[in-house]
Amino acid sequence: MNDQKISEAVIRRLPQYDRYLRELERLGITRISSGELGKRMGLTASQIRQDINCFGALGQQGYGYNVQELKSYIEQILGLSEPHDMVIVGAGNLGRAVCNYPGFLRRGITPVALFDRNESLKGIKVGELTVQSMEEFIPFLKENPASIGVIATPRQAAQEVADLMVEGGVRAIWNFAPVDLKLPPDVAVNNVHLTDSLLVLTYRLRVISDRKNGEP
Amino acid sequence: MNDQKISEAVIRRLPQYDRYLRELERLGITRISSGELGKRMGLTASQIRQDINCFGALGQQGYGYNVQELKSYIEQILGLSEPHDMVIVGAGNLGRAVCNYPGFLRRGITPVALFDRNESLKGIKVGELTVQSMEEFIPFLKENPASIGVIATPRQAAQEVADLMVEGGVRAIWNFAPVDLKLPPDVAVNNVHLTDSLLVLTYRLRVISDRKNGEP
Repeated sequence: MNDQKISEAVIRRLPQYDRYLRELERLGITRISSGELGKRMGLTASQIRQDINCFGALGQQGYGYNVQELKSYIEQILGLSEPHDMVIVGAGNLGRAVCNYPGFLRRGITPVALFDRNESLKGIKVGELTVQSMEEFIPFLKENPASIGVIATPRQAAQEVADLMVEGGVRAIWNFAPVDLKLPPDVAVNNVHLTDSLLVLTYRLRVISDRKNGEP
Repeated sequence: MNDQKISEAVIRRLPQYDRYLRELERLGITRISSGELGKRMGLTASQIRQDINCFGALGQQGYGYNVQELKSYIEQILGLSEPHDMVIVGAGNLGRAVCNYPGFLRRGITPVALFDRNESLKGIKVGELTVQSMEEFIPFLKENPASIGVIATPRQAAQEVADLMVEGGVRAIWNFAPVDLKLPPDVAVNNVHLTDSLLVLTYRLRVISDRKNGEP
């Protein structure tokens, strides 16, 4: 796979492709044209063809894409060919939401443990998991290596938790704390900034309101 | 404001600019060059200049940007010049996380009410709010118009809740349910797909692993 060729914008669209292709599979659709897929995804046919050419030619002109084949290929690019175990630190509402979120398991990503430094939460059940104390964090990871770590703590604790994750062999961090983590270059990270997402919404609302009020 | 000129990629960066500019303000920095701002944000100086030119020239060659001025301007573009009230439907972990999330209030976005159709949750305190029954939803909105509605329900309930929000005068929907809502064109929407964000992480992890294993 030539990853150099794939732009950030395409990377961000890959999970969308996966989502739509899974939906097509569920509907029993086995082939789809770039035009039809584009219509569903709100993209042009040529955009779809460009994206898919980015990661290797799969379609045949006039025949469309094989849904199952394209989905497998995209999931391989997304690193879903092998299963992932995921540990979560922070048993507040966000950490609990991640534990219970449907859709991760379907992709082979399994929440395996939940930790919190608040000792009063120790032993509480969250979905299938039981909250463990932070003292058990490194020993747990030694026994049960996990590739993904989720940081669902307040921002003040995030860097310390990230350091512990790296020490415990976690190779990818999904960070919900509003802070830029300092990490070794071989540890992957993706930050979820909920506020950013809300402000994109207020932007769109402002554009619609201006249009209604006749402003440019 | 000429919104036609602003691309999706720039829109997605606007909240980041806001975040970094707020941080600069906090640090007491009043002017910043495109190079320095770029370094902090992980963008090139020319990218920064391009972005900012997109929404109107503010910098003076050689003098950098006035932090406070640029922040105000970006917040105006983001629709933050006026305050927003926000109602939340779904008092599960995600809905509760949104109610308690720090950072919204600072931007003038206030969670004002939380609803759930599960009657057994009625009356429960979540942060400053008390869970209300769905029967109170439309009457509440009539008395207390809110511009933003948050859908934090299972996917099956999402469209029905969206319809109620539109009926109640909500003009922007922040949707956490993994479903594409059907909405009138004058209602803004932004979908949060948590799985998409996690798959961008597994993508990055796969790229790093391939590189380590000497694959292209």
